[in-house]
Amino acid sequence: MAGVSLQDRKSDVVDRMVSLLDRAADDGARFVAFPELALTTFFPRYWFEDEKDVGRFFEEAMPSPETMPLFGRARERSVAFTFGYAERTAQARFNSSILVTPDGSIAGRYHKVHLPGHADNRPHLPFQHLEKRYFSVSDTGFQTWPLLDMQVGLCICNDRRWPETYRVLALRGAELVALGYNTPTPDTDYPAPDHLAMFHHLLSLQAGAYQNGLWVLAAAKAGWEDGHHLMGGSCIVAPTGEIAVRAIGEGDEVLVYDCDLNLGRTIRDHIFDFAAHRRVEHYGPIVEQTTAESAPAPGDAKSRPVS
Amino acid sequence: MAGVSLQDRKSDVVDRMVSLLDRAADDGARFVAFPELALTTFFPRYWFEDEKDVGRFFEEAMPSPETMPLFGRARERSVAFTFGYAERTAQARFNSSILVTPDGSIAGRYHKVHLPGHADNRPHLPFQHLEKRYFSVSDTGFQTWPLLDMQVGLCICNDRRWPETYRVLALRGAELVALGYNTPTPDTDYPAPDHLAMFHHLLSLQAGAYQNGLWVLAAAKAGWEDGHHLMGGSCIVAPTGEIAVRAIGEGDEVLVYDCDLNLGRTIRDHIFDFAAHRRVEHYGPIVEQTTAESAPAPGDAKSRPVS
Repeated sequence: MAGVSLQDRKSDVVDRMVSLLDRAADDGARFVAFPELALTTFFPRYWFEDEKDVGRFFEEAMPSPETMPLFGRARERSVAFTFGYAERTAQARFNSSILVTPDGSIAGRYHKVHLPGHADNRPHLPFQHLEKRYFSVSDTGFQTWPLLDMQVGLCICNDRRWPETYRVLALRGAELVALGYNTPTPDTDYPAPDHLAMFHHLLSLQAGAYQNGLWVLAAAKAGWEDGHHLMGGSCIVAPTGEIAVRAIGEGDEVLVYDCDLNLGRTIRDHIFDFAAHRRVEHYGPIVEQTTAESAPAPGDAKSRPVS
Repeated sequence: MAGVSLQDRKSDVVDRMVSLLDRAADDGARFVAFPELALTTFFPRYWFEDEKDVGRFFEEAMPSPETMPLFGRARERSVAFTFGYAERTAQARFNSSILVTPDGSIAGRYHKVHLPGHADNRPHLPFQHLEKRYFSVSDTGFQTWPLLDMQVGLCICNDRRWPETYRVLALRGAELVALGYNTPTPDTDYPAPDHLAMFHHLLSLQAGAYQNGLWVLAAAKAGWEDGHHLMGGSCIVAPTGEIAVRAIGEGDEVLVYDCDLNLGRTIRDHIFDFAAHRRVEHYGPIVEQTTAESAPAPGDAKSRPVS
């Protein structure tokens, strides 16, 4: 999807999503993945001092009045779908995505686990990344749900860079993982050459797909949002790690692929036969410690510049 | 390293390793990584009915008489090194590698965690992969050791395909991971187009390096061993996931690179700040279950051929 402006009305964005879903259904799609925070601009780039300026980005019910047309059209076309939005529950605010069946019922709900960025105001940056301010860490964890003839897992944006995401979803039976994302160009969170950003995005998806024998659908918001650029790179990755199809532009675009679930089975039956080869007795630190033991404190010690 | 034949004497192989170490030291290397099972052919491809036919591939002491010249030359050149070999202890047989300091003492010892292949005789295959017959699963797990001005971790061959390997090593403080491998061309363990084998090898190394902010040294035996081909692809991967240098042939070859440890620090301080972003409460299944829950039994169910 092309970017969404601060000025755009949610109902107009939903109109675009309905049109995209129609095009996908025309091409035979049975499941459609939309981006993270699809209904609004990527608002965590802005510091809002006043809580009431943030509220308008959040949904308290889903379907909401503005998204009803999307639910309705998907049901008419008998298409399942997923999309991301900012959710306010009675307890907290989450960066959420939902999984909707072809009959329009919500089969699954995911709250983002890996929230990047920071919670404090950093007005010196060209833009901020305030997910840790506006969202709570997931209370759902990684789950999967039966959908059509497959088992589907959800994750969101930064989750895709952490190998634990795909592994937990695979252990919970996922054959396909759908995710939405909004990745700024450049990323202030990582001072590296800009051209590496797309490489890192694809590398993470491809390794996650291959090492777990599953399909990955990655849907970006791309291009400009009020002077801020998102890098795009939507694609469908096969369980071989190969990119099956990839967006070439930064506008609204439909990618359709006939995903053979047996391809993942082949990977999981052979090279990555979990039952035969995984040695959980040696994986303890992954859950027992958050950070590296006896590592030097961040930012100190060695002083050579990064080359 | 080029292949090693069943007929080669260990002392001749060690002569080659001494020559390679000299060339690396001439180019300024302070640490040298050699392949898995460097002293012998990749013997797990053969079924040996009689235990006494297997014994000659194993070492009971290290340094052994045949490897003393390597330890001696490394000490003279003040170079640290690692190499893999088949080890017999009082308890079991392991696929092992050791880390040797510039003064010639053994700083670390690693026994392979992820043993691929099978334990049963499969004479119908063009070659076998009997690591599960000849070796026990690791009793060491993944460890790291201080060496020169860095913290070094070791893994071996198939370990490099499992994201848990790099993650546990990173959590144990690794800034650089050295591994040796012998990967057959084609891989009977995975019925995919042959050209994907090199992609999968590099994908696993690059993702492991990037997602953990560490350098990876991968040293292959390459080319022919008595009519069996090993794919090669030795390389040094930076913490950005970029391949810094890569072998172009299948003979004995020296790759030298000046690895900036600060590059890994940059990754771990920003995008992969473990302390800020890892959510271990959601990673439980990684250690709590070996295989996927409620997944269909391998090989059954869907019958479509792999495309």
